[in-house]
Amino acid sequence: MTYERKNIRAMQGYSSGEQPQNGDTIKLNTNENPFPPGPGVTAALKALSADSLRRYPPPTATTLRTSIARLHGLEPEQVMVTNGGDELLRLVITTFVEPATDAIAVAAPTYTLYEVLAGIHDCRFISFDLQEDWQLPPDFAGQMNAAGARLCLLPNPHAPSGTLLPASTIRALAESFKGVLVLDEAYADFVDPESDYNCTGLVREFDNLLILRTFSKGYSLAGLRMAYGLGQESLIAPMQYKTKDSYNTDFISQQLAQAAIEDQNYASMTWRVVREQRALLRKTLAAMNFSSPPSQSNFLLVDVPTPLSAESIYLALKARGILVRYFKQDRLHDKLRISIGSESENRQLINALQDIISKGNT
Amino acid sequence: MTYERKNIRAMQGYSSGEQPQNGDTIKLNTNENPFPPGPGVTAALKALSADSLRRYPPPTATTLRTSIARLHGLEPEQVMVTNGGDELLRLVITTFVEPATDAIAVAAPTYTLYEVLAGIHDCRFISFDLQEDWQLPPDFAGQMNAAGARLCLLPNPHAPSGTLLPASTIRALAESFKGVLVLDEAYADFVDPESDYNCTGLVREFDNLLILRTFSKGYSLAGLRMAYGLGQESLIAPMQYKTKDSYNTDFISQQLAQAAIEDQNYASMTWRVVREQRALLRKTLAAMNFSSPPSQSNFLLVDVPTPLSAESIYLALKARGILVRYFKQDRLHDKLRISIGSESENRQLINALQDIISKGNT
Repeated sequence: MTYERKNIRAMQGYSSGEQPQNGDTIKLNTNENPFPPGPGVTAALKALSADSLRRYPPPTATTLRTSIARLHGLEPEQVMVTNGGDELLRLVITTFVEPATDAIAVAAPTYTLYEVLAGIHDCRFISFDLQEDWQLPPDFAGQMNAAGARLCLLPNPHAPSGTLLPASTIRALAESFKGVLVLDEAYADFVDPESDYNCTGLVREFDNLLILRTFSKGYSLAGLRMAYGLGQESLIAPMQYKTKDSYNTDFISQQLAQAAIEDQNYASMTWRVVREQRALLRKTLAAMNFSSPPSQSNFLLVDVPTPLSAESIYLALKARGILVRYFKQDRLHDKLRISIGSESENRQLINALQDIISKGNT
Repeated sequence: MTYERKNIRAMQGYSSGEQPQNGDTIKLNTNENPFPPGPGVTAALKALSADSLRRYPPPTATTLRTSIARLHGLEPEQVMVTNGGDELLRLVITTFVEPATDAIAVAAPTYTLYEVLAGIHDCRFISFDLQEDWQLPPDFAGQMNAAGARLCLLPNPHAPSGTLLPASTIRALAESFKGVLVLDEAYADFVDPESDYNCTGLVREFDNLLILRTFSKGYSLAGLRMAYGLGQESLIAPMQYKTKDSYNTDFISQQLAQAAIEDQNYASMTWRVVREQRALLRKTLAAMNFSSPPSQSNFLLVDVPTPLSAESIYLALKARGILVRYFKQDRLHDKLRISIGSESENRQLINALQDIISKGNT
């Protein structure tokens, strides 16, 4: 017999991008950083002794939290470290959203995990449509308040379009929204410094703003599962001391994340190269009639020109050992999301694409 | 203002044993293995390259699950790997217990995290009293069924007494209980092989039995946060593919856990020595009038003889750099839970205890 709860039985799990474990695939499907982790991480890894694993790790990663707080000009109590960004997203829902009665709001399309998490929690999920140019719906805060939303999950830069809302929009949203605004900045490291985007300072002003950051993309550590949240202590403390698993991050991950965050020069270098490659790839693809909105992330959401089919091109690329992301859903089924790879990977992508188109074998 | 849910606001978080980060403390408070991880783990750690962290890890740890399945004579689909045992406990609740209406049952005293997890999930929590000799309440299954319990969380060997229920009792319980029986075998590695205790085979017979095992104690890897669940696919699959975080265990932890589980000889050696030290420590303490029930775990629950006070002895040991666990709660306030340390640590504990008693300075 089945013992599952009704909502769990009814739902589908999150379907993550393919993760082939062989090294040959050109993986442009899950937005990993094309650079390896920095030399500081390698050194920290070499310095580790297995003996240090015998004991439990620091339960709230105090040393790492202190470094993160310093980086953002915040206090350690305004920081919590989580086992990947997924954990933080789950924890905000667990902590701030009442099952059955409360609602989570998003502007769609968006990161599909959000709806899966709402399904697990069995709360209401309200999806407002983004405008054609990926801007927020008109009076988004007002609409969410009217719908009684307790939590808004908002990726910025937006996934999967890569577009960026300015900090002024986030400020206005935090001010008007009556629930908790979770700003998912998983890709914020790749924002052009010239755009002057910075929302972490808003944490000091708004007691309903929680910012998510991750080591997975900007610090090339997707394999490590480390992320963090920034928010006022009233938001952070209940998650840190009540709802998270007692020892949610392990000793090694704490050490390596610490090494990564302390080497801002290396990380910044990778972000700069990704931005350069992003500009180049976007231009090259546009010249081939594959246009994309201006991305401030480490991926492009590319329109596949008619009469070509996005799904066919995804499959044809896959057959050539190149993975990109195809979403079979409303507003996305004619597009591909392509991570910015290394210079060589991007070139191979372009070559494969040209080959596919010229042969007409999509 | 506060955005916390009412139940979260009202509850207290789990209070874990102290985790001093200096190496001098004799830590006999959180049941770590006195031995370091084995040479295979050291070799696997040395073999790791930071580059392998750039990509996402295998989302369901397939290679590791296959090794675990082989060890227990089960199928990989009957195994799931989690970020510590805490994660598995949380997942069974998330997946099988309806908030508000459903109930979790325990036999108390028990691992205090269980009630905290029920508080987070905001479900009912029913606590039946263990008998004086730590045996289950009479007709435990019948009582749980009558109370409508959907989940039973049962540590075996029992925490914090260390006593062991025979497999026949577990079988009878799984047979009669109408909900999901979670057998928390965090300490099962330390059971005397002569007792012939083995419940993992019952997984093939009962679709409502889920067994929890951990790398934290038996494999000296508390710092790594790795555990696993064994159960029929109908129990495992919804947690594995729906309710767990997408990438719940990281690449390094998967590699090191794999190395640990493949070196059963080393692990067994540590279990044997812990058992020998357990017998010696129990006898020595009993001779000092600190009696304890027969433990099949890596700790003893020691009665502090009147007129001595358990809390005072805990504090006096702490002042001497020795941590043991004191629970200020019903049926435990006159006892101390002492982890089995190395031979030298156990000797220092005895010496300190003798010193404290002789000086009467408790």
